Amino acid sequence: MAERDVPVPGDGEVQVRNLFMAVDPAMRGRMDDAKSYVPPFDLDAVMEGPAIGEVVVSNDSGFAPGDIVFSRLGWREAFTAPSSALQLRDCSDLPAQAYLGFAGVTGLTAYAGMLRIGELKPGDVVFVSAASGGVGSLACQIAKIKGHKVIGAAGGPRKLDFLRDRLGLDAAIDYKAEDNLTKALAREVKAIGAGGIDLYFDNVGGDHLHAAIALANPFARMAICGMISQYNAAGAVTPPRNLTQIMTKRLRLEGFIATDHMDLEQHFLADMKAWHKAGLLQLTDTVHEGIGDAVSAFLGLFDGSNLGRTLVRLG
Amino acid sequence: MAERDVPVPGDGEVQVRNLFMAVDPAMRGRMDDAKSYVPPFDLDAVMEGPAIGEVVVSNDSGFAPGDIVFSRLGWREAFTAPSSALQLRDCSDLPAQAYLGFAGVTGLTAYAGMLRIGELKPGDVVFVSAASGGVGSLACQIAKIKGHKVIGAAGGPRKLDFLRDRLGLDAAIDYKAEDNLTKALAREVKAIGAGGIDLYFDNVGGDHLHAAIALANPFARMAICGMISQYNAAGAVTPPRNLTQIMTKRLRLEGFIATDHMDLEQHFLADMKAWHKAGLLQLTDTVHEGIGDAVSAFLGLFDGSNLGRTLVRLG
Repeated sequence: MAERDVPVPGDGEVQVRNLFMAVDPAMRGRMDDAKSYVPPFDLDAVMEGPAIGEVVVSNDSGFAPGDIVFSRLGWREAFTAPSSALQLRDCSDLPAQAYLGFAGVTGLTAYAGMLRIGELKPGDVVFVSAASGGVGSLACQIAKIKGHKVIGAAGGPRKLDFLRDRLGLDAAIDYKAEDNLTKALAREVKAIGAGGIDLYFDNVGGDHLHAAIALANPFARMAICGMISQYNAAGAVTPPRNLTQIMTKRLRLEGFIATDHMDLEQHFLADMKAWHKAGLLQLTDTVHEGIGDAVSAFLGLFDGSNLGRTLVRLG
Repeated sequence: MAERDVPVPGDGEVQVRNLFMAVDPAMRGRMDDAKSYVPPFDLDAVMEGPAIGEVVVSNDSGFAPGDIVFSRLGWREAFTAPSSALQLRDCSDLPAQAYLGFAGVTGLTAYAGMLRIGELKPGDVVFVSAASGGVGSLACQIAKIKGHKVIGAAGGPRKLDFLRDRLGLDAAIDYKAEDNLTKALAREVKAIGAGGIDLYFDNVGGDHLHAAIALANPFARMAICGMISQYNAAGAVTPPRNLTQIMTKRLRLEGFIATDHMDLEQHFLADMKAWHKAGLLQLTDTVHEGIGDAVSAFLGLFDGSNLGRTLVRLG
């Protein structure tokens, strides 16, 4: 942690006090020195990441004090930046923190994954891994809003209560309490009166993906959003061992990244606002207090202590 | 092998003398007692499988002696069957054996896999595994006819000569001579001046699929037609260990079976006939002689001795 003076804005610059920042699992990937869809983080630089803040001083005609702005300048309480680094957000219908959650990239990830990549269809039985996480909990909520039977997997009794009581899922699996995730998923599929799953929203990979393939109905779709089980697994990955079923069941596995689907944004925001207004979509963020808690908020993504989207309140 | 009298056709029945039968890797799957898209073979029953034959005696107005008919009644030199078990084939433009190869389900598999599932697009660099096999060699030929750079993998120098000299591929990999298939594919991609592959036609799975994922360009498609490396691997499967790249590269892996794509048949047959007539599409079948050679023809699919589609000449 370092203290810096925040400069007075020059021409075309804006000074912002952040209200919330978010931490997410994708940041872990950028801590490896490997080629990916975004470059690795620089050492000794401020951590990048999404934040929502309020304009304090503006030297740009497009922004006025009090405006709510989104930025990706990361883990800082306040900053001065060129106005091109900021995007205005309309908070007349939504709380500011929603733009880091269901109305932000997290929400778009769940939305694009379920509806475009997963092609959610009437009657589909849905399975979501890391279902209590930021993206997973929204994927579950979207499927429930659309009337589907949803099975969620997460780790530990506290998360299972969250899946059942807050998200209203039809079945929940505590992967930490199961010897064999495939058998557990088979049991829950049967318990909800289904013959298999039609759409798997994958945040985990490994044995979760194995279970989803094993229980997949023919022509099931697997929207591959993340494989958190594999990121920290120094070499010891546990890939699914039943990939031949991709062919026999004609499965489709497709990876995706929300930013490839920005063309959906208007439709997505309209749906999210309507669902929020109707009381169908809940704010389920875990909010940590203060920048001093940012690292533990981030680590909480991997040790399983966070529910929903993980935010840090900064102002 | 058993000798049986072939009965005189009753009402609505037809007697057929087979000209060719085919063996294919999918038959191996039906030798396991496992649920799949087709039921397992019965013990002590005649092996089922595609055959093309000539009508000898007909007791059905839809068939006349001399007609060429397709059947799936399998490994027999002659048979009598209800006419509903037979399909007429027009041999004015094509040799009869083509209907077991490029103009049959084998051809439709390659065609649907490359064009519908793989969505072959201008500029795509294509990688095909088991490229010297029945389906693989046709997948290669289709991609070459459409002007693409194609890398094929197969086992042994004889197959590599076939890929280079008969199929005209841009690069060929002898997987049996390589310690590391991923490095070999990277070398060949570079050798043809490409940055990666855009379409992988998978007949093999395992380390071939791993290599394809490792060398995939963003948004590459993988048409999963078979995973022959996994069928005989009593428990010891070697799944790809780089599946996280499905997400980071936004890859799509999709399994398929030709019989789900019969709606393509007219278009497919028109293309195949036109390409054959123009001399672009070759008959590259390995033809074994006589029903006594059927078992070794089948085993040749797995020990790597066959080139192209594997047929047995029966008449």
